[in-house]
Amino acid sequence: MPVISISSDFGLQDGNTGVMKGVIYGICPDAKIVDMTHLIGPQDVRQIAYVLARQVFYFPENSVHIVVVDPGVGTARRPIAVRAGTQLFVGPDNGFLTLIYERAEKEGWPLQIVHTNRKEYWLPQVSDIFHGRDIFSPVGAYLAAGVSLGDMGEVVTDPVRLDLPRPQRDGASVRGEIVRVDHFGNMISNIPMEMLSDIDCARVDLKGKKLDRIWRTFGEQPVGTLMALPCSTGYLMVSVNQGSASLEITGERGDTIVVSDCNN
Amino acid sequence: MPVISISSDFGLQDGNTGVMKGVIYGICPDAKIVDMTHLIGPQDVRQIAYVLARQVFYFPENSVHIVVVDPGVGTARRPIAVRAGTQLFVGPDNGFLTLIYERAEKEGWPLQIVHTNRKEYWLPQVSDIFHGRDIFSPVGAYLAAGVSLGDMGEVVTDPVRLDLPRPQRDGASVRGEIVRVDHFGNMISNIPMEMLSDIDCARVDLKGKKLDRIWRTFGEQPVGTLMALPCSTGYLMVSVNQGSASLEITGERGDTIVVSDCNN
Amino acid sequence: MPVISISSDFGLQDGNTGVMKGVIYGICPDAKIVDMTHLIGPQDVRQIAYVLARQVFYFPENSVHIVVVDPGVGTARRPIAVRAGTQLFVGPDNGFLTLIYERAEKEGWPLQIVHTNRKEYWLPQVSDIFHGRDIFSPVGAYLAAGVSLGDMGEVVTDPVRLDLPRPQRDGASVRGEIVRVDHFGNMISNIPMEMLSDIDCARVDLKGKKLDRIWRTFGEQPVGTLMALPCSTGYLMVSVNQGSASLEITGERGDTIVVSDCNN
Repeated sequence: MPVISISSDFGLQDGNTGVMKGVIYGICPDAKIVDMTHLIGPQDVRQIAYVLARQVFYFPENSVHIVVVDPGVGTARRPIAVRAGTQLFVGPDNGFLTLIYERAEKEGWPLQIVHTNRKEYWLPQVSDIFHGRDIFSPVGAYLAAGVSLGDMGEVVTDPVRLDLPRPQRDGASVRGEIVRVDHFGNMISNIPMEMLSDIDCARVDLKGKKLDRIWRTFGEQPVGTLMALPCSTGYLMVSVNQGSASLEITGERGDTIVVSDCNN
Repeated sequence: MPVISISSDFGLQDGNTGVMKGVIYGICPDAKIVDMTHLIGPQDVRQIAYVLARQVFYFPENSVHIVVVDPGVGTARRPIAVRAGTQLFVGPDNGFLTLIYERAEKEGWPLQIVHTNRKEYWLPQVSDIFHGRDIFSPVGAYLAAGVSLGDMGEVVTDPVRLDLPRPQRDGASVRGEIVRVDHFGNMISNIPMEMLSDIDCARVDLKGKKLDRIWRTFGEQPVGTLMALPCSTGYLMVSVNQGSASLEITGERGDTIVVSDCNN
Repeated sequence: MPVISISSDFGLQDGNTGVMKGVIYGICPDAKIVDMTHLIGPQDVRQIAYVLARQVFYFPENSVHIVVVDPGVGTARRPIAVRAGTQLFVGPDNGFLTLIYERAEKEGWPLQIVHTNRKEYWLPQVSDIFHGRDIFSPVGAYLAAGVSLGDMGEVVTDPVRLDLPRPQRDGASVRGEIVRVDHFGNMISNIPMEMLSDIDCARVDLKGKKLDRIWRTFGEQPVGTLMALPCSTGYLMVSVNQGSASLEITGERGDTIVVSDCNN
């Protein structure tokens, strides 16, 4: 019962995610298909990189994650398939796996990247503008059906990586960036909580707001309160209890967030 | 082939519904997972209560409905699992099942409520802000996989119930409230059709509009006509044939609707 | 492992697509259910006709496509089930299959249309306003479970067909219409590329813009460039590389598009 997730910037109106599932079931009838998200902003590779890194390691071993955020479709950019730890990935070589490569490297997980150029694993006819249907879906379905990654094509040693913003230590402070604003208006930073472990008394600065501690969960503060707390995957975020931090402080991706120690 | 539905206020952009499915398939690989809705307004427990009551009894016996509209996540509110008649439910004890408790009591169906505090049915690590992933998905998956409700935790005898608006008889009239506006702009009331059975000649008043009968279906009136008719689960609603009643009369949840008998 | 797709104008907030899946799994527990789209404009039968024609022939043989865009629900319009080539369809007889009838006729595929009036394949109780749940879902599920189309009801010889705009040759030019604007703002015409095969040097006119050739894929032009190219199912479209043609030129469905030969 292999699990396949699909992520894209296709939206939900056109049936383009539906047709990918039709292709997948034709090749791997036992697949369990999960929509990860299809509301990534058009061509926003960085955004899907953050969403994937947050979600995929909760999936069963050997799940296949197909990603179609593909501004370079039909050009020379390579289609790739990747094993990173327990999970498999299929998509364009445009950096969408940057954070997952890094995690695999940090954790010492297996990391195998191939250029999926074997056309026997593509649809017979390949359009120039919809590789999600014609290449990534069949490749993902064959992987889920048990074809080995090594059979899919040549090894890639120089995958594209995105130049993502990194949190910086600055004396007793940590300076990061808001990298994602979610559906609720939570503003999620790139600062992992463990980077703050030696700060006794945290003060968080974001968009001119100064928050004088880091809470555990929303309900510890009254409804409507702007507050800092860890997101569910361990990064610092700024939220409003039962409200939207993003609307409240007109915050957005790219905003600087600084955590300092009130004792300093 | 157990069926699991998921309802939430998560929206569709962040992959949070995807990760729940990843968790579920890891525990119950045979599950058939259905998205009920993820577009409940943030923290709008009352809204999901109405949607669930409308939909769940069309599902196969022993389907499990996971609901994550959870303003109290990480606080003292209890995670619960419930059997009501043929269906099972998992979510926070915040009243989202109010209408379903009432239906089970009215129909004399089995109703069993437990506090799902046995951590062997949770993920090993539980965050303070995403119990949908860490508690409700695994609990739902174990239920679907055959673990009995009684094994999940202690019996609950005082579940939280919402204080929902109730239709009132007022002489020959019935006074109700619009409790849901759907995607088409249909304005759905809390007045069950059977409460109107002794009204021979109904007149419906809503937002200053007077509608002089209750129709059977949209196409009985010209396109664009404001009309009263029963919704598909037997409550009175006001609609515009091929249009939006909500837009037409700037109506919304909470509006008063009165049905009187033109003979009185 | 039969595949069932569902298309509708229901949106995603109300759980009406969820309840259809509950009904389907009760009848055909092995079904693999795919959401094609639920964001068709309300009652926009023409739009679902174009989406379906684009997507369904990528599905496995004997997939069942349930379509609920149904302005005539509860009136005399017939519920139908159809085989066209390898695919099966269920929905109201309102023309949503017009392009698929034409394709079957052109290709010489089997085409069988029945009025699904056998109530043993409906839910026991049928509402007047939600045949998606009460008729089309059970009929589709029984088809997927192996009931033969011929058992579903009487043969229909006069199915409703939409009067769709057709591309016209006009000397050395072809005059068509924009029939769909997708999520990315691509403006997709009704002109099949093969109709342009004898134009050596194409010039495309749309909304006063003159485009002097037809490209192969987006990345052949700089980001932000308005360009003509084939869509992934072989019709001419106008796009902006990493942008929205529809926004860029305030274009919409119904706009006239003309392809002429620069040599003439």
